[in-house]
Formats: sequence, structure tokens, C-alpha cells
Amino acid sequence: MQHAARMRALGGSIEAPLLVTQLPNIRYLTGFAGSSAYLLALPGGGGVFLTDGRYGESAEPLIAALDDVELIVTTGPLWDSLGPVLSGRDGLRLESAGVTWDFVRTLADKTGIDPAPSTGVVEALRRVKDDGEVAALTAAAHAGDLAFSALPGLLEGAPTEADLGWALTSEMRRHGGDPADWDPIVAIGPGASIPHYHSADVPMGRGMLLLDYGCIVDGYHSDMSRTVWLGPDPDEELSRVYRAVAESQQAGIDAIAPGVACGAVDEAVREVLRGYGYEDRFLHSTGHGVGLEIHEEPWVRRGNDDLLQVGNVVTVEPGVYLSGVGGVRIEDMVLVTADGPVVLTESSREMMPA
Amino acid sequence: MQHAARMRALGGSIEAPLLVTQLPNIRYLTGFAGSSAYLLALPGGGGVFLTDGRYGESAEPLIAALDDVELIVTTGPLWDSLGPVLSGRDGLRLESAGVTWDFVRTLADKTGIDPAPSTGVVEALRRVKDDGEVAALTAAAHAGDLAFSALPGLLEGAPTEADLGWALTSEMRRHGGDPADWDPIVAIGPGASIPHYHSADVPMGRGMLLLDYGCIVDGYHSDMSRTVWLGPDPDEELSRVYRAVAESQQAGIDAIAPGVACGAVDEAVREVLRGYGYEDRFLHSTGHGVGLEIHEEPWVRRGNDDLLQVGNVVTVEPGVYLSGVGGVRIEDMVLVTADGPVVLTESSREMMPA
Repeated sequence: MQHAARMRALGGSIEAPLLVTQLPNIRYLTGFAGSSAYLLALPGGGGVFLTDGRYGESAEPLIAALDDVELIVTTGPLWDSLGPVLSGRDGLRLESAGVTWDFVRTLADKTGIDPAPSTGVVEALRRVKDDGEVAALTAAAHAGDLAFSALPGLLEGAPTEADLGWALTSEMRRHGGDPADWDPIVAIGPGASIPHYHSADVPMGRGMLLLDYGCIVDGYHSDMSRTVWLGPDPDEELSRVYRAVAESQQAGIDAIAPGVACGAVDEAVREVLRGYGYEDRFLHSTGHGVGLEIHEEPWVRRGNDDLLQVGNVVTVEPGVYLSGVGGVRIEDMVLVTADGPVVLTESSREMMPA
Repeated sequence: MQHAARMRALGGSIEAPLLVTQLPNIRYLTGFAGSSAYLLALPGGGGVFLTDGRYGESAEPLIAALDDVELIVTTGPLWDSLGPVLSGRDGLRLESAGVTWDFVRTLADKTGIDPAPSTGVVEALRRVKDDGEVAALTAAAHAGDLAFSALPGLLEGAPTEADLGWALTSEMRRHGGDPADWDPIVAIGPGASIPHYHSADVPMGRGMLLLDYGCIVDGYHSDMSRTVWLGPDPDEELSRVYRAVAESQQAGIDAIAPGVACGAVDEAVREVLRGYGYEDRFLHSTGHGVGLEIHEEPWVRRGNDDLLQVGNVVTVEPGVYLSGVGGVRIEDMVLVTADGPVVLTESSREMMPA
């Protein structure tokens, strides 16, 4: 039902045929979650959906539920089917951020078409989440919260950073969250000030522990970060960093409302860090949309004039990183509503949770 | 050491600057395993390596170990750094199978360069594995074998197909295999005849169980399939299918030798299935190379004239799928040596292992 409405919305927003090749966009428009598909969307609605023989059976009811979309199940080489579908489509647009150069060259070779680049058309529709999408995002966030609440027990069975990452993933799965396609970030001590991609051999211990992880429910991602002090006697400097990040994160959340520019949320975060003298140790942007992709529009970054809308779900995740000392990041998912921000991530934001 | 030699080999094989953007190619050439990098390789050797601030520290010793490769750690927008590096590089080639259309358009816009497409240059070098690569592939295959040997116990704690997939992944991890970026295929009964991408709700039970899974060690993938009958009284038709697949798989392995065309291995497999009357139920090709990518050159498929070389590692994985009845696939990784095939996957190939 909602997929048919989304296809109609797309048909109403384009003035030339658009070949949708980005799989999250295809999933959004049709519900199809396989790994191989092409969707030609036509102005005014309808189109053609191609997938290969592995997915014909599962695609059939999904495509039948749309208006005027033809299903083609390819059995031979892709271009034997795709070529005739695209031939003669004057003004054809391609999703230029995802399609490969080889694809464009083959298209020209097989059809003689000179396509035009297109960016962000379906992504713009995906910015505003409907109730079903919010429910999936909330469930994914909740699985992350349950993993965080299990942290004391998980730490006991996790001798290294990588082991703890695995334990978090396992715990989220136990609570209905499919494993994400990115590994949890687990960093203890000074290592948290620089990202590193191989934490298998880093033993756990005492100090400041930075966690950044998430999972997937019905295709929708969660993303959260927490930083906690393990052991007694928290470091004084890191405690101050923690207060700065926690205050700036709250300021960012408080700034969220429909009609507010993304850049203004970033500035609200930055202002607090500036007051603490840490702005130059905030090495990334404040946040990002989250949905069928872990990072998607809108981008909560400096100078972005895009206005927040009811139904956006964005992260707010300031961080401060002191080389050789450690890092602190706190990240929540926030739903924009007419009544203000609703924080979907419910875990404690204390540095030493009870 | 080996990375410097690989860069020299690449420099000796190209006649124009090549911008390497595919991350497995970059890892092969430099050892860099992060998620953001560009490597400009120059004819005769040397080049320029760019990564972002997250990875500067980890990239430094890797790039220092190469000959005449400059390291640039980007801090601002990518093209502020990449543009000057590429400007004036006449005849620049791009990896057209991986680079996006947006990248090509931005390159033209920022540098005025009209690049040429390039395919498979580094991939050709990657076909022949050295001792270290074979050791990593063997270790990955071994972790898969250990998971298979634990199957009886894993089945007890796995009520659904998805649960068993997770249990296999967990067991491989326990034996040193990092989780792969694809989920195990676990399919019991008639479902094994059609690929399905959502097995969370399919309960385990009796019948023919098809498993296809693998893991990663030091970046190198394993890939194996086994099919086993769960319970007493194996189905007669599926038992015949099993014999056909097992015989054809052995015929494929036996056909492997240096100088043999990949297509001849495919034909050896096909010939056996043809004798059983199942050739038209063999719905995919016989195998593929495996290494830093789960699917890579050489391709063991019908009509491929590429000759096997000492040091290739390929899968041999015939399968027969009877709609509404079930499917059987058996897959091993095989190393090509001067003395013939060495099967890296050591698990039992019995339909009802003891």
C-alpha cells in the first residue's frame, strides 16, 4: 500500500524517465530487499522492474501491488533485457552517485542513449519517515538500548575491543536487531582519540570506553554512541570533556524543531564546545539522517541550510578527541515532530551509569 | 615487503597513470585496510596515496614501506587534494567497473582531464596467490571446516534457518574467522531450490539442509557449501541428486591443473550432471576465484578460455535444484599447484556425515 503511494509520489515529481539503481531507493519504492534489481520510473507513475531469476518469485507480489509496473525476470545477460527496456527513453536519467562508469558506457553502447545525471530524487522522498518507518527505527534503537543495558555482563566475557563489539552485535540480535553491515566501534583509553580499524588485539581494561554501534530492523538502521568510564577514579580532564560533550549534545537535541536549519543544530552543538575550548577537537559533523541507510539525508553539518521537517530522523553526535588521552562521543537518534524533538535512543547518558 | 614488490609489478605493467579506487586492489597493493583511499600508480613504479585524517596514522608505515609513494592525508574536501594530484596526468586511467559516474564527472570538472577506462589490471595480478595469501585462505577455510564439524551441536540451539546461520558465523569467529560481509545461506527442504533472502522465520526440521557460508582471515575470504540430510530415511530422489552433485564436484576438482581452461573445468562438472539428466537444473556457473573478494577472477564458467595458473584459488560448486523438492550444492576451495589440485576445504562430503 505505502509502496504504491511512494511510486505515485515519485512519478509525480519527475519529468523524465529515471532509472533507479540504488538498492535502498528500490527497497523504499517497492519493498524489494534482494541484491539485484533495476527500476525504471516513468513521469506520471508506473514503470518497469527487472530482477534476476533468483528473485522472481519473491518480487512478484511486491510488484503486483504497485500501479502499472511491469515485472521482468531476467534469465540471460542483463543487457539483453535492460537494453530494450531503456531504448528510446528520451531524456533518461541515471542515479549518478551510485551507477558505475562501466554501466553508463554500456548503456550508451547498447542503446545509443545519452543519459543525464540525477541526484537525490528518491533520497528526498526518503527524508520524511512514515509511521511504519518510525516504528522500525524505534525498534532498532531499542535493540541498541537493550545491548547497552547488558554492558556490565558483556564486559565480563569480552577480553578485547573486538570481542565486546561482537557481544554487542549478538545482544542486539537477541533482541530482534539484524547485524548491521558495519562493525561496532569499540575503543578504550587513548585509542578512542583516533579511529582504528583493527581492534581485535586491543585488550579491554580500565578507562574511558567509547562505543558506537547499531543494528537493522526491517531494513531500518539504528546508530548510537555512548562513552563510559570503566573502573573507579575517573580522569579529571576526561570528566570535563564528558561534561562538555553531554551539554553540547543536549543543546543539539534542544535545537531540533521543524523549520530549523540543519546548520543551526550543528551550531548549537558547536557553541557549547567552543565555550569549553574544545571546538577544534570536534573532528566530524554533528549528525546525519538515518533510515534504510545508516547515513542519509538530511546532513546535520555546518552551513547546511536544509530545513528539518516533521518525520526526519537524525543523529546528534558531538565528540571531542584529545590525542594521546582519549575520546568522548554521545549519539542519539532524534525524531522531528510538530511538538519538538523525540529522542528514540533511551540509554543513560551518564559517564558512570549505575 | 610483498606490497613493494606488488607495486613494482603494477608499475611495470601499465603504460599510463592508473588511479586505483577499488579497496581490495588498494589493500592488495599497499596493505591498507581502511575504508577511504585513492592510489595513483605511475608507469615504472611509485605513485601517490591519499587517505583522510582518520587513517593517516595507520597508513604512514604502510606507505613508507613502498618505493617512491607519496602519502597525502586529506583534511578538507577530497577534491582539494585529489584534484592537484591528478591534474596534468595525461592518459589517466580509471577503474571503470567501480568508479561512479559522479566521480568521473567531478574529475572532468575539477581537472579538465578526459580519463580512459581500465578494467582488471590489478585484478589480474591478484589471481596468483603467494604463500602468505594461501596461508590466510587456508586459515579461513579451516575456520569454516571447524564450524561444519560443530554442526550437530549448533543445530540444537538454532530453531530457525537464520539462527543456524548466526551460529555458524559465531563458531567461525571463535576459530579466528572474522564475519564475512554476506550472510550464510541456510535452507532446509524445498526452500533450498529457490534462493530467498529472509530466512528468519523458517523453522529448522528434517530434510535436506543446504549451507553456504564463509569467513575472513587477514582480509582473505573462505567460501564453502555443504548439503546434509537431517533425520532418518533420506528421500530417494534427493539421494540421487546428491550422488550426481558429489560426482560432478569431484570431476571438477580432478579437472583442475595449470594450463587447463576454466571452461574445461565447468564442462567436466556439466558432463556428469548431463549423464544424470540434471544439467538443466544446474542454475549457476561452476565456480570463481576467491581472495580479498569473495568473488574474483578467474571465473570458472562455461566457455571461459582463461587458463588456470599455479597459485589460483577457485571454488568448485556444482548444484542441482528441483523446484518444490529441494536443492543440493557442494563447494570446496581448490588451490592450483604444479602437482595438481589441493582442496583447502577439508569437511566431509557425505550426505549423512557420521
